[in-house]
Amino acid sequence: MYGRIARTIAVPGKREALAEILVNGTHALPGCLSYVVAADSHDPDALWITEIWEDAESHQAALSLPAIQTTVAQGRPLIASFSTMAETLLIGGSGLPKSAER
Amino acid sequence: MYGRIARTIAVPGKREALAEILVNGTHALPGCLSYVVAADSHDPDALWITEIWEDAESHQAALSLPAIQTTVAQGRPLIASFSTMAETLLIGGSGLPKSAER
Repeated sequence: MYGRIARTIAVPGKREALAEILVNGTHALPGCLSYVVAADSHDPDALWITEIWEDAESHQAALSLPAIQTTVAQGRPLIASFSTMAETLLIGGSGLPKSAER
Repeated sequence: MYGRIARTIAVPGKREALAEILVNGTHALPGCLSYVVAADSHDPDALWITEIWEDAESHQAALSLPAIQTTVAQGRPLIASFSTMAETLLIGGSGLPKSAER
């Protein structure tokens, strides 16, 4: 399974609006097992976005969906910068979505 | 809900062993909704650990559990450094553990 972890800096005062767009725009994407948006407790403008996909191809394919393109278009003006971007391969753990348990 | 995101650098060659200790040592912790260990795709020594807890107090309380102290004692010699450590408040998303859905 393929993971993504990104720390995104919102335009000042726009973190909540950006989070709302991301949460609402990412339901039921094919191959997406988890998409979680969280506020950084120590930076009022930073969001952490953690994603789990069946594989990198599912993520790549989602980028061309109209729903995602709309979400990106809505969110982009509220993003000041990306400060961390990682790609991962899941090893294991607890509390994974059912289809991701090993 | 309280989240933690950490990027941990293993001693060279020990990433897999460290991941195994972390995955095996963190099952069924009280108040822990999710604990996921993943390998950084672009750094052979780096692990990402993402955690979701009911609240910060649950996490704090877990640190004094014998099971966690054993896990920490086993894992510490395999850790070279911590390169990122964030605390978050969950906003929302999809694929969260059942008890974390909003």
